[in-house]
Amino acid sequence: MNGIPHLTLDLDQPGVNRGHLVVPGGADCEELWLPVFSLNKGEGSRLLITGGCHGDELEGPIVARRLIEWLPEAQTCGRVIIIPVLNPPAVRAWSRNTPIDGLNLNRVFPGSPDGSVTERIADAISRLVLPMADTVFDLHSFGLRWDFPPASTTHPIANADLMAKTLRMAEAFKLPVTLLWEHNDTPGMFDTWAHSQGKVFVCAEFGGGTVGSEALAIYEAGVRNALIALELVEGKAEYPIFRQRKSSQTLETRSSDELKSPAPGIFEPRCSVLDEIEQGDLIGILHPMDSLSAGSIDIRAPTASVVCAVKSGMHVEADEAVAMLARPIKF
Amino acid sequence: MNGIPHLTLDLDQPGVNRGHLVVPGGADCEELWLPVFSLNKGEGSRLLITGGCHGDELEGPIVARRLIEWLPEAQTCGRVIIIPVLNPPAVRAWSRNTPIDGLNLNRVFPGSPDGSVTERIADAISRLVLPMADTVFDLHSFGLRWDFPPASTTHPIANADLMAKTLRMAEAFKLPVTLLWEHNDTPGMFDTWAHSQGKVFVCAEFGGGTVGSEALAIYEAGVRNALIALELVEGKAEYPIFRQRKSSQTLETRSSDELKSPAPGIFEPRCSVLDEIEQGDLIGILHPMDSLSAGSIDIRAPTASVVCAVKSGMHVEADEAVAMLARPIKF
Repeated sequence: MNGIPHLTLDLDQPGVNRGHLVVPGGADCEELWLPVFSLNKGEGSRLLITGGCHGDELEGPIVARRLIEWLPEAQTCGRVIIIPVLNPPAVRAWSRNTPIDGLNLNRVFPGSPDGSVTERIADAISRLVLPMADTVFDLHSFGLRWDFPPASTTHPIANADLMAKTLRMAEAFKLPVTLLWEHNDTPGMFDTWAHSQGKVFVCAEFGGGTVGSEALAIYEAGVRNALIALELVEGKAEYPIFRQRKSSQTLETRSSDELKSPAPGIFEPRCSVLDEIEQGDLIGILHPMDSLSAGSIDIRAPTASVVCAVKSGMHVEADEAVAMLARPIKF
Repeated sequence: MNGIPHLTLDLDQPGVNRGHLVVPGGADCEELWLPVFSLNKGEGSRLLITGGCHGDELEGPIVARRLIEWLPEAQTCGRVIIIPVLNPPAVRAWSRNTPIDGLNLNRVFPGSPDGSVTERIADAISRLVLPMADTVFDLHSFGLRWDFPPASTTHPIANADLMAKTLRMAEAFKLPVTLLWEHNDTPGMFDTWAHSQGKVFVCAEFGGGTVGSEALAIYEAGVRNALIALELVEGKAEYPIFRQRKSSQTLETRSSDELKSPAPGIFEPRCSVLDEIEQGDLIGILHPMDSLSAGSIDIRAPTASVVCAVKSGMHVEADEAVAMLARPIKF
């Protein structure tokens, strides 16, 4: 059953093409056929849009489907490749990681042709699709356990020129937050790999929880703004409305900006994303589970900042992250 | 290790008491100690408030903790018993069902002293706590896979007098929706058992997804309104603000009001809860996963109605529920 990854469509062919990226089978599962859309209008930006890297983040696959509906009418030049679902087994299982091998697709790049299924997906993307693009939008969301604002994000990049270009691209989404996000756990990420190949790579992220029609409209508007900035489609970029406001801010968050739970128990959120807070403001309360007499513990802001992410009300372990703070970026 | 369920506090003792409901151990796990709060101010309503029946619905446990903070100052008469977490193993695992035996606590009432842990919890509640109350508020939420408005709900009750009393009690929460909910899968539910014992039993439910500070404030306001209606605390009941509106409507939904997915694929929600829709309006779109050429399928409203619940954007199977419609109740 082993084979080599291949495309059933020719990405160089002009106009609209639909087909599949075939990921070879192995001992763990049969080959996977990932639907691919390609719209080649010649000279201009070369953009890859991907979704469904994590199977419980469905904004991306849905917005990717919407783009496929209206891009053929709207795109004036350049090339766009769209893969709505990078990880079909994870999406079918509504699972962050691939249920077959338990791996996180966003930690195994550039993958391996001889690895387990998640590594084979990463390998096929890295070798056959990524080289066809100069810019990548990977459509994520922040997951079910967190509240998070609509945001475009990038991790810090050592190459200053690529960092500047990437941040400008991220800001072009005009989402409520553009986030420069220092993250300790980056080896094997799709963006880390793409950055190493000189690509401009931006993740869109979204609030956790239910994927609803209003959130999808904001998400789609952000991607459309970025397509306008790349001059792939014409139009006027506009800030989407989020919580009755049209606004945007560029923030940075460091690993040290994560607030951790002081003990196991039920975390009660007492702030909302984008709240501007002073030192000492209440972020949340940790309630021990075993007793109603033992005191609950207040979790307070160590410095003035903006709330960038808040854990959902749920049981947490000691030292588990419950909030991420951020501040306006200084160049 | 087997024993009999017992309370470490005397619920008849005046004033505030804190202790535990001890659920005996068995072959599957050690005994469980469920924290219990009791506030006995003599004559008046006898109310039991429970949360954490499902381990991924944390609004209830958090609001229950808040009540424990302010009730000692506010309660003027009657008795209130609060058990913030009915199912500690499920809450620790952020799991709807008990991870130890895989059972749904809300399907095994009245439970069994010789059963597995979930059945032993139900048995302890049924025998030692439920008889101490005339009214029960069981604090749920609608789960992670759905958007759902803040609501108080009851299933239909054959006893017309109890039905009327229960619906009045549910309306006293003054949440955006009071829902009379016909549900096929009711055997073993806590409310079905409590109704059979002549109790007024109301569930509070809440939108799926992230448990945030604004949702918690609405939820707490609803419970406070109901406490005022029971004359346990003084004050003026007020409609909480939800989506910039203060309003309330009493709706009913039947099993036949569930819309099902016509095929497996990714469900894209195209409406929001509380939308008033006409026959033929678009509820959502079903996108097949395997191909970008095969058509997506529109899911439309069969009749004029109010959207009561919408499934999150996610992969669904054929015939899986994707929306619940409702209409104003007619007496």
